[in-house]
Amino acid sequence: MRILVTNDDGILADGIRILAADLAKLGEVSVVAPDRERSATGHAITVLRPLRIERIDFSDPRIQAWAVDGTPSDCVKLAIEDLLEWKPDMVVSGINRGPNLGTDVLYSGTVSAAIEGAIYGIPSVAISVAAFENCNYSMAAEFGRQLVLRVAENGLPPKTLLNVNIPSVERRDLAGVSITKLGARVWKDVFDRRVDPRGRTYYWMAGNVEDCDGALDIDSTAVRHNMISITPIHLDLTKYDLIEQLKSWDIKFSDGMD
Amino acid sequence: MRILVTNDDGILADGIRILAADLAKLGEVSVVAPDRERSATGHAITVLRPLRIERIDFSDPRIQAWAVDGTPSDCVKLAIEDLLEWKPDMVVSGINRGPNLGTDVLYSGTVSAAIEGAIYGIPSVAISVAAFENCNYSMAAEFGRQLVLRVAENGLPPKTLLNVNIPSVERRDLAGVSITKLGARVWKDVFDRRVDPRGRTYYWMAGNVEDCDGALDIDSTAVRHNMISITPIHLDLTKYDLIEQLKSWDIKFSDGMD
Repeated sequence: MRILVTNDDGILADGIRILAADLAKLGEVSVVAPDRERSATGHAITVLRPLRIERIDFSDPRIQAWAVDGTPSDCVKLAIEDLLEWKPDMVVSGINRGPNLGTDVLYSGTVSAAIEGAIYGIPSVAISVAAFENCNYSMAAEFGRQLVLRVAENGLPPKTLLNVNIPSVERRDLAGVSITKLGARVWKDVFDRRVDPRGRTYYWMAGNVEDCDGALDIDSTAVRHNMISITPIHLDLTKYDLIEQLKSWDIKFSDGMD
Repeated sequence: MRILVTNDDGILADGIRILAADLAKLGEVSVVAPDRERSATGHAITVLRPLRIERIDFSDPRIQAWAVDGTPSDCVKLAIEDLLEWKPDMVVSGINRGPNLGTDVLYSGTVSAAIEGAIYGIPSVAISVAAFENCNYSMAAEFGRQLVLRVAENGLPPKTLLNVNIPSVERRDLAGVSITKLGARVWKDVFDRRVDPRGRTYYWMAGNVEDCDGALDIDSTAVRHNMISITPIHLDLTKYDLIEQLKSWDIKFSDGMD
């Protein structure tokens, strides 16, 4: 199996190094990842300036690695279009430091990299540890490797991927695996408004999240109950069931409304 | 009606100025937009550094305007959370220079700003002119204003928005309005690989797009036939019909696989 590994925490992050080393047990692994943290870059790509790449010593001779001064989606595109000599059988993005749950997946560079893999028709998996400190990456990597094998066996439908969130607990405290839906998340107090030493206002994005649903088939709830959450994701944003309703509006470009 | 206007081409772009001036005929308009072009930023938000804002003279006394050194999604968040004294009745993003069609909406800052409006529960519309040169912004703005009125009358379901692409043709050459689905787009020759004067390789993202479907209910096809394309968009990435199938995989965290 040939696996492309990327992330949005940057190529120096612990999560990607532990993941790549573990996946190398399954076959050939190449890492193409941002040269620095690019969290919350969503599905950004870099079109207004050129991209540069650098070969990186990944301290594991089995793993080829490149750093890219762009976003996670840039990395996947550049890997597949130019850097790799083979088309990957799988794209695995992570292990992200921090959860990627519910509506927030829209902002996630980790998930967007896996979406990019799915755009290329490659089965893809995004993996996050649901904690920012004391992350249990080795357990997450082990589960990720097991899941990659299952995906390789079973395949995924076109233009779909899996979003995996793993509680950062000890192995014995894991409560199982739940196949979930993305939950609704609402952020409160999103901006922390401050004044700099010269008297000018600036804003830090921060905030507290509230999950809106408590069912165990919701990703955030599952993780809160120490379960590994696996959510199937698609990338078709068309709202099909609104098409007929919009047609009934009979929208025309009217003349003389000014 | 109170309307928040934003874009991803930046607050200096012609498209947003013409749009805001036209929408001001409908009510109160505030503009909160990036201080420079932020094309293809997708749903990126800025979390690793603070944001700064600046009041801008928009040469129209009816319109309040702020420039933000962030992404389109940052602008919508900051407007609603802090800058505006009112919650908008509508978020309108555009007029983008260039089309936002098919799979490419995932990369679009214009569309992502409207998605952000929808996350806040506000009816939202993204408007693009399907050309990069000689853009007919005034016609697009006039149609946009008519559509905003229709959305205000009819409403939109929660967490949906409209993605509008308008051919850049003369009014008399417009062939009508089509309610569409997002089409599949495949990019070829995505990277232009070059060598800088010091002998180092760099990559420009570019490429040629191929639309994969020719039906008139596909957004790109409609635009190619000089029709205004209106696509209803949602933001729920859960692939519901894969949940039962994944459950049948019976995924467990196995011990002793090493």
